[in-house]
Amino acid sequence: MELHKVSVPERRTTAKALRQRLAEVFFPDDPLHQFKNQSSARRLVLALQYFFPIFQWGSEYNPRLLRSDLVAGLTIASLAIPQGISYAKLANLPPIIGLYSSFVPPLIYSLLGSSRDLAVGPVSIASLVMGSMLREAVSPDDQPILYLQLAFTSTFFAGVFQASLGFLRLGFIVDFLSKATLTGFMGGAAIIVSLQQLKGLLGIVHFTSHMGFVDVMRSVFKRHDEWEWQTITMGTAFLAILLLTRQISARNPKLFWISAGAPLTSVIISTVLSFIWKSHSISVIGILPRGVNPPSANLLTFSGSYVALTIKTGIMTGILSLTEGIAVGRTFASINNYQVDGNKEMMAIGIMNMAGSCASCYVTTGSFSRSAVNYSAGCKTAVSNIVMASAVLVTLLFLMPLFHYTPNVILSAIIITAVIGLIDVRGAAKLWKVDKLDFLACMSAFLGVLLVSVQMGLAIAVGISLFKILLQVTRPNMVVKGLIPGTQSYRSVVQYREAVRVPAFLVVGVESAIYFANSMYLVERVMRFLRDEEERALKANQSSIRSVVLDMSAVAAIDTSGLDALTELKKVLDKRNIELVLANPVGSVAERMFNSAVGETFGSDRLFFSVAEAVAAGACKVQL
Amino acid sequence: MELHKVSVPERRTTAKALRQRLAEVFFPDDPLHQFKNQSSARRLVLALQYFFPIFQWGSEYNPRLLRSDLVAGLTIASLAIPQGISYAKLANLPPIIGLYSSFVPPLIYSLLGSSRDLAVGPVSIASLVMGSMLREAVSPDDQPILYLQLAFTSTFFAGVFQASLGFLRLGFIVDFLSKATLTGFMGGAAIIVSLQQLKGLLGIVHFTSHMGFVDVMRSVFKRHDEWEWQTITMGTAFLAILLLTRQISARNPKLFWISAGAPLTSVIISTVLSFIWKSHSISVIGILPRGVNPPSANLLTFSGSYVALTIKTGIMTGILSLTEGIAVGRTFASINNYQVDGNKEMMAIGIMNMAGSCASCYVTTGSFSRSAVNYSAGCKTAVSNIVMASAVLVTLLFLMPLFHYTPNVILSAIIITAVIGLIDVRGAAKLWKVDKLDFLACMSAFLGVLLVSVQMGLAIAVGISLFKILLQVTRPNMVVKGLIPGTQSYRSVVQYREAVRVPAFLVVGVESAIYFANSMYLVERVMRFLRDEEERALKANQSSIRSVVLDMSAVAAIDTSGLDALTELKKVLDKRNIELVLANPVGSVAERMFNSAVGETFGSDRLFFSVAEAVAAGACKVQL
Repeated sequence: MELHKVSVPERRTTAKALRQRLAEVFFPDDPLHQFKNQSSARRLVLALQYFFPIFQWGSEYNPRLLRSDLVAGLTIASLAIPQGISYAKLANLPPIIGLYSSFVPPLIYSLLGSSRDLAVGPVSIASLVMGSMLREAVSPDDQPILYLQLAFTSTFFAGVFQASLGFLRLGFIVDFLSKATLTGFMGGAAIIVSLQQLKGLLGIVHFTSHMGFVDVMRSVFKRHDEWEWQTITMGTAFLAILLLTRQISARNPKLFWISAGAPLTSVIISTVLSFIWKSHSISVIGILPRGVNPPSANLLTFSGSYVALTIKTGIMTGILSLTEGIAVGRTFASINNYQVDGNKEMMAIGIMNMAGSCASCYVTTGSFSRSAVNYSAGCKTAVSNIVMASAVLVTLLFLMPLFHYTPNVILSAIIITAVIGLIDVRGAAKLWKVDKLDFLACMSAFLGVLLVSVQMGLAIAVGISLFKILLQVTRPNMVVKGLIPGTQSYRSVVQYREAVRVPAFLVVGVESAIYFANSMYLVERVMRFLRDEEERALKANQSSIRSVVLDMSAVAAIDTSGLDALTELKKVLDKRNIELVLANPVGSVAERMFNSAVGETFGSDRLFFSVAEAVAAGACKVQL
Repeated sequence: MELHKVSVPERRTTAKALRQRLAEVFFPDDPLHQFKNQSSARRLVLALQYFFPIFQWGSEYNPRLLRSDLVAGLTIASLAIPQGISYAKLANLPPIIGLYSSFVPPLIYSLLGSSRDLAVGPVSIASLVMGSMLREAVSPDDQPILYLQLAFTSTFFAGVFQASLGFLRLGFIVDFLSKATLTGFMGGAAIIVSLQQLKGLLGIVHFTSHMGFVDVMRSVFKRHDEWEWQTITMGTAFLAILLLTRQISARNPKLFWISAGAPLTSVIISTVLSFIWKSHSISVIGILPRGVNPPSANLLTFSGSYVALTIKTGIMTGILSLTEGIAVGRTFASINNYQVDGNKEMMAIGIMNMAGSCASCYVTTGSFSRSAVNYSAGCKTAVSNIVMASAVLVTLLFLMPLFHYTPNVILSAIIITAVIGLIDVRGAAKLWKVDKLDFLACMSAFLGVLLVSVQMGLAIAVGISLFKILLQVTRPNMVVKGLIPGTQSYRSVVQYREAVRVPAFLVVGVESAIYFANSMYLVERVMRFLRDEEERALKANQSSIRSVVLDMSAVAAIDTSGLDALTELKKVLDKRNIELVLANPVGSVAERMFNSAVGETFGSDRLFFSVAEAVAAGACKVQL
């Protein structure tokens, strides 16, 4: 059998290797690719298009696209107006802030954003988290101005955090919130939000300010004398209608407009009913100021005892809204087969929130539910956001008095309908089926949110996600391999029952990078395999192990501790007169081995191109 | 070409899979192996031997072994007595505590420990960390009793922490302190310790209580009027002698006894000199109480405002001393070809510290320098520790008055000589050569200790170690593979220049588990490879890519996000009329794929045994 040599990648200078590594970490998408080999004028145009995508699609914009965007924009506006008012209440903010936040941010996003389908505005999870974090320090009822200041300042910090993540190209940080933990977190948050709506649905006046399941339920039943039957009747009826329309649209996606139009229709009908009845027992929104967003830069406070709180709230809401915005953008980009640049999107969302915080807006991002409606309604570009913002503008300028008699109970019903979709039971069931550890992470986040607090739930979610990675790194897969008859391939004997162990050889596949965190385990595990195999050989009356072949194909990287562990393993095996050879080290591993003393320890006669060649060479030696 | 099917490991129940996974995490060394197929009487003996290794080697003990242990024990005692006194001063404790700590813990370890070479007692790093952490809260000069209470309580917590790590089989946690960061941390700590000795060496009375490089240097030069020339002369002379003997022993390991005996000899000579001179300008140790360790259980305090501090100090010193003890144990076990069980060692060291804290001892562990001397002096079993403890006992009972005139400056010289070996310049240079990121971690830990604080240095070290793992997970290696002529093997085209790309195929090797943290990157990276390859094909006038083969050999695991990413990638490629096929998924990955909807998406016609078969099958299809 002809032997092939193990190659090492071309030698690079330290500076070049470092540059390549950093480029891979921070620019995996190679954003400057399109700038290569271009004239400087063209480069300027490209740069302008890069930072303001509107220049890219704007030049090809035509009336046909406008018609689609107009329909989509008006559809999401009909959803955005009632949701904006509702979500602001979720954040303990005046309802009008929700409308302000549905006006300025969408306009900014349409200039900077690269997603065509994102519908921008306030979202439920970020509103909930901001509301619960700020209320712990300041009561929105007793100190409304201070509370507003903190909300805007948190929004500003959220924007700074988001934009910096994008600018520093640290976008991969949002990837650390795994889907499994997010499923649990969102489900828990949705239930918390729904429970909070019991206040509105039952018409209770004195409600707990806590968020936990137990506190809320206790408050609901302790205050049953405050239950208001007119409110309950109205709330239940509209909630039933909204859930029904949601169900219809889910069954038949073409009828998406039924659920999209239902909230606004409900608001109108309930307002008319409440206006006719003029019942004092049904609480209504009341007077809303007319006019566009007032400036709020003067309300931002960067000193005093609440700075730490606003920074913390900003980071929490910032990362949550980013996660939602980026996920939504990617989802629809993949459906429509275009690319969104995560880091650029983060900058766009960040700048939008920084600007928003100076124009009386709180944290906004791309909303999942409204973006889905936007897509279903046939939006083509970010113009649908401009249309929506215009509709909100008209509302702010002329229609505000109409909301005077809108009952609060209808807002609660709208919120419940919106968040109920976040409870993904089927997703959790799939996790259980496929990956028990993922399911555990999901349930921990869920119960953490529900029983402890929203922040704790999020912390648990992140903690478990990281722990899972570290666990995998500390205890990597290691398998005994055998030859598949009729091939030159070695495969795990557990996976392939036809795989045959080669007598006198122990072939071990290591399926992980070898690090300080697992190098000791590696040595121990090989020794245990050896012991088991020798016991097996003894029983089967086969010859004892003469050579251990470490299949390095799957070892993506090795650090100094890993190299030491290999030397160590060789020394231990040498003492037992067993040879240790390595098969198929990949580029970076081979490079490191030849750069260190380990390369000499494992000379070319102990380093093989493949397991098959290692075994062939070893068999020759045994025969000699 | 005959096609082989991809197999899936035998179906296991959830409970069984979980049990196997937990066994792999917590019992990778299979400690119950020897209990299998044994009678219950034999099992009892084995269990006794398991928990008290002394029953194992004790039965085979003989006078020949005793002679070796006697020589080794006396040699390390001559080192342990001056070092014990010196290290106690490093922890701001009375010198006598260092002797107490060299008496009880070695006796306990000799019963429970499984290392034959470990020399147990106080060590420099743990002493330094305890001293610096406790001094931040309590002054050892103003409140000596409280300081002593805190030191014993911290020791107790360190023991509890160590024993629990061992008992819960979480020993792998110490593996997270990578060798690279430890090199930096130890180097920095050694310099901090040496700088602190300038107080003793120069005879300065009013010295800064800070540890930082800048503070100490400022203090040294501000107090130059306190420099004491007799002290300086004596200190420099003995330091030179000690360093010289160290150098001699390093050059010629057979002369190890020269450096082993030098500290005690220096203490004796300097004490005699100081007794003859009776100079008042050289500060001496003074009166030391005679007698064995007084009980100190009554000094342990578990309430009050210092509980958090003692727990924190306990955990920090506990983990540092564990790291040293385990590393030393493993090093000498590997030299002498026996095994130490990390988790059992942790329990032994933990129980030793818990007991020690009730007998006026502070944190102890296996010392690297004394264990090396122990090994060189020919120790055979833990009896050398008993011999050493007996020598310390004799000192405590009869020889204490002799230390009255021992100058403090000699202790400073001994400490400097001991810690100077921790500065591993060659090790750092090796890191630079082999792994730049490891070197960065090393230098950050080094500078963190030196310029900020010991705790900060440790935090930086752990942080960087973890960050490095996460970075590798987030940005895994991905390579384009080509066929090696004359084989059926595909290898990275960057590593093997002879590898040939197969026209119309793009073979991509993924060298990492596919996780939520890298699944988006995976998709982006494949798309970028595709773009680059298509540009290359266009230039070379080759046919465009028709099929992407993902080589999954090195993908050790996949989670739900990873499965979704594969589906996503397939959808994107489908739209461009490019086929996506997978080659050689390993056991757990294949299992997950068949358990989820992804298995159906990639039916058996898209899942291949090897890259070669995938390409062969694809080529057939193209020809059809």
